[in-house]
Amino acid sequence: MKCWVIFQPSGRRGYVDKGKNLLQSSRELGVDIKTLCGEKQTCGKCRVRIEEGSFPSYGIYSKRKNLSPFTSEEGKFIDAEDKRLGYRLSCAARLQGDVVVYVPEESRGEKQVICKAPSDMGIEINPAVKGYDLELNPPSLSDPKADLARLRADLEKRHGLKGLDIDYPILIRLGDTLRTAQWRVTAVIWMDQEIIDIRPGDFKSLYGIAIDIGTTTVAGYLCDLLSGEVLAMDSLMNPQITFGEDIMARITYTTKHPGEGLKRMHEQIIQSINQMIVNTTQLIGASPEEVYEMTIVGNTAMHHFFLGINPEYLGKAPFCPALHQSIDVKARDLGLKIHPSGNIHVLPIEAGFVGADNVGVILAQQPHHLDEETLIIDIGTNGELVMGNKEGLHSASCATGPAFEGAHITFGMRAAPGAIERVRLNPEDDEVSFKVIGVDRWSDQCEPEEIGAKGICGSGIIDTVAEMVKAGIVDKSGRLLGSIPSSRIKRAKKGYEFVLAKVSETAIGRDITITSDDIRQVQLAKGALYAGAKVMMEILGFKKINRVILAGAFGNYIDPEKAMILGLFPDCELQKVTAVGNAAGDGARLALLNKDKRREADDIARRVGYIELTLCKDFADQFASAMHFPHMRDPFPHLRGLIPDEVINLRDG
Amino acid sequence: MKCWVIFQPSGRRGYVDKGKNLLQSSRELGVDIKTLCGEKQTCGKCRVRIEEGSFPSYGIYSKRKNLSPFTSEEGKFIDAEDKRLGYRLSCAARLQGDVVVYVPEESRGEKQVICKAPSDMGIEINPAVKGYDLELNPPSLSDPKADLARLRADLEKRHGLKGLDIDYPILIRLGDTLRTAQWRVTAVIWMDQEIIDIRPGDFKSLYGIAIDIGTTTVAGYLCDLLSGEVLAMDSLMNPQITFGEDIMARITYTTKHPGEGLKRMHEQIIQSINQMIVNTTQLIGASPEEVYEMTIVGNTAMHHFFLGINPEYLGKAPFCPALHQSIDVKARDLGLKIHPSGNIHVLPIEAGFVGADNVGVILAQQPHHLDEETLIIDIGTNGELVMGNKEGLHSASCATGPAFEGAHITFGMRAAPGAIERVRLNPEDDEVSFKVIGVDRWSDQCEPEEIGAKGICGSGIIDTVAEMVKAGIVDKSGRLLGSIPSSRIKRAKKGYEFVLAKVSETAIGRDITITSDDIRQVQLAKGALYAGAKVMMEILGFKKINRVILAGAFGNYIDPEKAMILGLFPDCELQKVTAVGNAAGDGARLALLNKDKRREADDIARRVGYIELTLCKDFADQFASAMHFPHMRDPFPHLRGLIPDEVINLRDG
Repeated sequence: MKCWVIFQPSGRRGYVDKGKNLLQSSRELGVDIKTLCGEKQTCGKCRVRIEEGSFPSYGIYSKRKNLSPFTSEEGKFIDAEDKRLGYRLSCAARLQGDVVVYVPEESRGEKQVICKAPSDMGIEINPAVKGYDLELNPPSLSDPKADLARLRADLEKRHGLKGLDIDYPILIRLGDTLRTAQWRVTAVIWMDQEIIDIRPGDFKSLYGIAIDIGTTTVAGYLCDLLSGEVLAMDSLMNPQITFGEDIMARITYTTKHPGEGLKRMHEQIIQSINQMIVNTTQLIGASPEEVYEMTIVGNTAMHHFFLGINPEYLGKAPFCPALHQSIDVKARDLGLKIHPSGNIHVLPIEAGFVGADNVGVILAQQPHHLDEETLIIDIGTNGELVMGNKEGLHSASCATGPAFEGAHITFGMRAAPGAIERVRLNPEDDEVSFKVIGVDRWSDQCEPEEIGAKGICGSGIIDTVAEMVKAGIVDKSGRLLGSIPSSRIKRAKKGYEFVLAKVSETAIGRDITITSDDIRQVQLAKGALYAGAKVMMEILGFKKINRVILAGAFGNYIDPEKAMILGLFPDCELQKVTAVGNAAGDGARLALLNKDKRREADDIARRVGYIELTLCKDFADQFASAMHFPHMRDPFPHLRGLIPDEVINLRDG
Repeated sequence: MKCWVIFQPSGRRGYVDKGKNLLQSSRELGVDIKTLCGEKQTCGKCRVRIEEGSFPSYGIYSKRKNLSPFTSEEGKFIDAEDKRLGYRLSCAARLQGDVVVYVPEESRGEKQVICKAPSDMGIEINPAVKGYDLELNPPSLSDPKADLARLRADLEKRHGLKGLDIDYPILIRLGDTLRTAQWRVTAVIWMDQEIIDIRPGDFKSLYGIAIDIGTTTVAGYLCDLLSGEVLAMDSLMNPQITFGEDIMARITYTTKHPGEGLKRMHEQIIQSINQMIVNTTQLIGASPEEVYEMTIVGNTAMHHFFLGINPEYLGKAPFCPALHQSIDVKARDLGLKIHPSGNIHVLPIEAGFVGADNVGVILAQQPHHLDEETLIIDIGTNGELVMGNKEGLHSASCATGPAFEGAHITFGMRAAPGAIERVRLNPEDDEVSFKVIGVDRWSDQCEPEEIGAKGICGSGIIDTVAEMVKAGIVDKSGRLLGSIPSSRIKRAKKGYEFVLAKVSETAIGRDITITSDDIRQVQLAKGALYAGAKVMMEILGFKKINRVILAGAFGNYIDPEKAMILGLFPDCELQKVTAVGNAAGDGARLALLNKDKRREADDIARRVGYIELTLCKDFADQFASAMHFPHMRDPFPHLRGLIPDEVINLRDG
C-alpha cells in the first residue's frame, strides 16, 4: 500500500510505500533532510513538523496519527511543546497514511546560495542609527544632575544633538550602565531623535539587516552600519508556503481561518526572520543585540502578513491596502530578536500587490532618472513590472507561480549546492552539459561521479527550457516532442520527459528530468509576465521597450539571452537587456545604509502609477497567446527531416 | 505559647496564642479582614499572603511552615500559583509559629475614604487625548487609497490635523474596524501627534486617571477628559510597605536583593495601580480600555520604583536620580491595563527625594506666583517642604514616618469607616468627644453602641495629641503624665496610655488608646518637618513665614489650629494657615486635564532650588529640639495644684 506524502516548503510530493520512515521518503522524493547518525535516532538533526488538517489544493488530508507512535528516543530531542506542535524525528516516524511534512530550515540539508555578493552600490553611508562616544563627569554634591540630564548635556556639547528622547527600557538601565562603565559610554542614537542604547566604553559594532520577504524566498543582508559592507547573507524559504503557494491562496487561507490564520502567517514569517538574525550574526560572531536597525521590503501581501495586518481587503476589489507609506515599529513590538529598542523600517508600498519590494527595485535601479522607455521585471512567485522613464513610471503585478524559484518543478530545488544552475544543449550532437552549484567545472569536464546533481534551481530551469526551445525539442506551443529521436527523451506517465542529468551524474539515484508539466509551469510564469508587459504598453501607449532590467531574488542571475528565447518580455535589443539580481534587496540595503533613501522611497511610492491587470479586459487574451514560445528563426538543420511536418509548421507558424 | 504576628500593610503586630487562626489573630490586633461565611471556609473572602524570610526591623523570621497545613477547602479558593506565592485563607490557617501576614487590598474590610471630593480647579480642559469624529468615503476602484491614507486625509480635511503617526497595534486592526463601523469612526489622538485608537461610531467616553503614589498610600482620580469632572476616586495602601516602611528601608531592600528586589517593588506598585484602574472604572461602569491617559506623581523613590529604575544611587551621596524631566511611556510597556496604546505621563522630579509629587503640589498651589513668604508642607511618610515666593522657590525632604497616615500607631488605621477622625478634649471635665468616619454625629451625641470606633486615622491622631498637649496631659517633652488624676489615663506596659474611646464605644471589644509610643511617633514626624522648615529659613535668610499651606493625601484635611498646637511648622498667623488636602494629586489631575500644565511642571522642576537636609549641619540639632511641643500659654486652671510642680515647670519652661 502507498501513502501520499508532500514535503514543504519544497513542494516535492509523491506516493511512498507504507511503513517507510520519513527520512527514506524524503530521499525518494528528492528532499534533502539533514542527518548525522544514519537513522539511529541519536543525532536529532532530522526533526520535521507534521501539518494537520485539510490541504484541498494538494488533495490531501494530513493527520499526525498517520505515522507510527511517538517513541521515547524522539522524546530526547523533542520537548512536550514541540511534540504538541507536531514535531517528529523523520528517521523514527513511519508512514501509516497520507501526510504533509514541513521540513524546518534547520533540518534542511544545504543552505541556499545567494550567488553573487551584492555590489558596493557606491552610496554615501548615512544610516538611521549612529554611535556617539561620550565621557561624562561623574556626579558630585556640587553637580548632582540626573543621569539622563548629564548624558543629554554631553551629547549636546560634544555632538550637537539636542532634545533627544530615550527609549524607556534603556532609561531603566541607565544608572547602572553609566556607573559600571565608569562614565565612558557610547550612545546609540536613532535618527538623531532617540537614545536606543547606552553601551559601555568605545563601542564600534553597529549592525543592520536588510530583509526582502518574497512569496517563496526570504533573503537577508547583514550590514556594517559604519562601512556599509555586507558582512553576511542568508536566505530561507518562506514557511508560509505550507498555507498556499501564491499570494491569493494565502489570503484565502487567512479569510477561511479568521484570526488564527493571520496569526500563523505572521508568526511564521517573524520566526523565520528571527532565524535569519541568528544565522547571520553567528556567521560574523556578533550578538543579535548589536543589530539596531532592520529594513523590510516585500510585496503588499507579504508586507501585511509581516506586520500582522489582515490582508482580506487587498485580495478583492477595490484592492485596498491598510497603508501605503513607510512605517517604523520597535523590534520588541514585532517580536523581532534584534536589540529590543531597535527599529524596523518597513518601506512603503505602491498599490494592489505592488509593494515595498518594487519600491526597493526602483530605488536601486532609478528608472525615474532614465530617458529610455524601460521595463523592469522583478521575477518571483509574484512578478512585478515597472514601465516608464523620467516622464513617469507605472507598475503592475501578476502571479507567476514559484517555477522560477525552483519550487513545484519535478526536480526543482533552491539554489543550493547540487542544484543545476546553467545548461547548454548542443543541437548538433544531442549532448547536454550543465553546471552544478558547488562544482567548479561544467559536467562535460567532470567524471560523472564528481557531478552529484540533486535538482534544478530557477536559473537552470530557464536555461533548460530555453535550450530545449532553441533545439526544437519543445515546440512553440510548449509541447515536448516525443517524436524526436533522442536518447534524452523518454515517455513519462504524462507525455514525455527530457533527461537533463543521467542517474550516474546525480546524487539522488535517478535521472533528473524536465517533464511536460514543468514546461507548462514555465509557460504560465513567462506568459503572465509577457502579457502584463504588453497590456501596460498598450495602456501607456508605448510602441517599443528600449531597455529591460531583469531582477529577482532567486539563485543566479538570469541569462538575458535565455529570457529572450523564452519570451519573458516584449522585443528589445539583446544588449539592452541586463540582469541585476535581487534589486529589491538592494533597495532595502540602500534604505538601511542611508536614511535619506527612505524619503526618496516614500516619494517613489507616491508617484508611481498603478495598473490593475486583473481589471484589464485584454489581459486574459494576451496571457493565452503569451503562453507560446517565440518563433525560432534557426531551427536545427540536422534534425530537419527527422521531425514530423506538423511540428515544423507549428514552429514556423 | 504565643506567636509573634505582624499584619501588613497596616503594621499592626502583637503576640497571639498558638493555635488561633489568622482571622482570629487579626481581630485581636485590630486588623479588619473581610469574611462572609463566618470562618466556615466557604466564602473565600479572607485570603491573605504569608511573607517568607527575614524581616530584621520587625525582629521576625516569617516561615510559611509556621502555619497549619494547607487544606483542600483552601484549595477551592487558592490555585496552585497563588498557593506557591503563599496565599492562605485566614480562617483556615492556624498559628504554629511567628509569621508576617500581608492582607491584600481585596481582603481588607473597609475602603479608605478620600474625604473631600477634589474641587473643580477651574482650569481650562485641554487634555492630551482627544476624540475626533470622522465619516470616511469607502474606497472604490476610482479611489483605492489605503485605509490609513484615507483616515489621514479626513483628519486633515475636517480637523486640520497633519502628519499624524499611528500606533502599530491600532494600524493592525484599522481595516477591520473601519469596515465593521461602516466608515463612521472616532479617532482618538494623543497630543495632536499620534492616532492611538479608532473606535466605531461616535464615541464620547474618554477617560484619564491621575495617580499620586505615596510611600504609604496610593490615591487615584478617574476623570472625564471631556468635562474634567472627577467621576471616581480610589485609594489603596502601597503594597511595598511589606519591604520597608520608609523610602530608605525600601531602597536598602532593593540593594540587598539585587534584581529581584527592584522587580518586586515595581511589580507590586504596577499591580496596585491596575487594581485601582479596575476599581474606578467599575464604579462608573466603564471599561479600562476607555482610559487613554494617566498622569503619575510620587516622590523620587516612588517615581523610580514605578518606572522600574534602580533607586540605589538616589539613596547615597550625591543623591543622583536617573532623570529629572517628565517622561511619556506607553501603557503596554509598563504593563498598566488601561488602553494598551494609552500614554503614561510621569511628571518631572526636582532633586533628592523631592519628586513629582512636589511638582504637583506647586502646580496646584502656585507659590511661585505669591508675594508672601510661603511654606508648603506636604505631609506623608516622606514629608516635603517648599519655601519661597515669586522671587524663587526651594524644596527639601524629610522622613516623617507613616504616623500621620495612621500606620504604626497602636490603634492607627486608614481613613475608613470606623476611624476616629476628629477629637475634642474638654479640659474642664476630663471628657472626650470624637467623630467617627461613617457616623454623622459626634460621640457625645450618640448612644455608645451607635459609635463603633475601630481605630484612629491621621487627622484623628493629630487632633488627639494636640488636645492632649493643650490639656497638659502631655508635657512639652512629650511625656504622657500618669500623675494627672484622670479616669482616661491608664498604666500601660510602657509608661501610660490615654483612653480615647472606651470599650463600649468601639467595635473591637476593647479600649482605643493613645500610648506613649504613639506620641513619640507624632513627635518624630512633626519634629522632622519643623526642623526642616527652620533650616530652610536659615539658609534662605527668611525671618518669618507669612503663609503656610498644609497638604497631604491622607484622610481628612488637617485642622490648622491643631497643627500649630503640635508645632508642625514655625510661627505663622493662624488665619494664614490653610489645609488643602491632596495637592500632589490635584497637580496630577491638572496635568491630566490640561497638557499645557505639563510644560509648566517641567519648568517648575527645573527652577525650584533644592536643599539636602541630611547635609545641613544644623538639621540634627534642630530636629532634637523640635521634638518638643510648643509652650502652651493657657494651661488648664482646674488641674492646677493637682499636677506636680516639675510638670508645671516643664510646661512653662
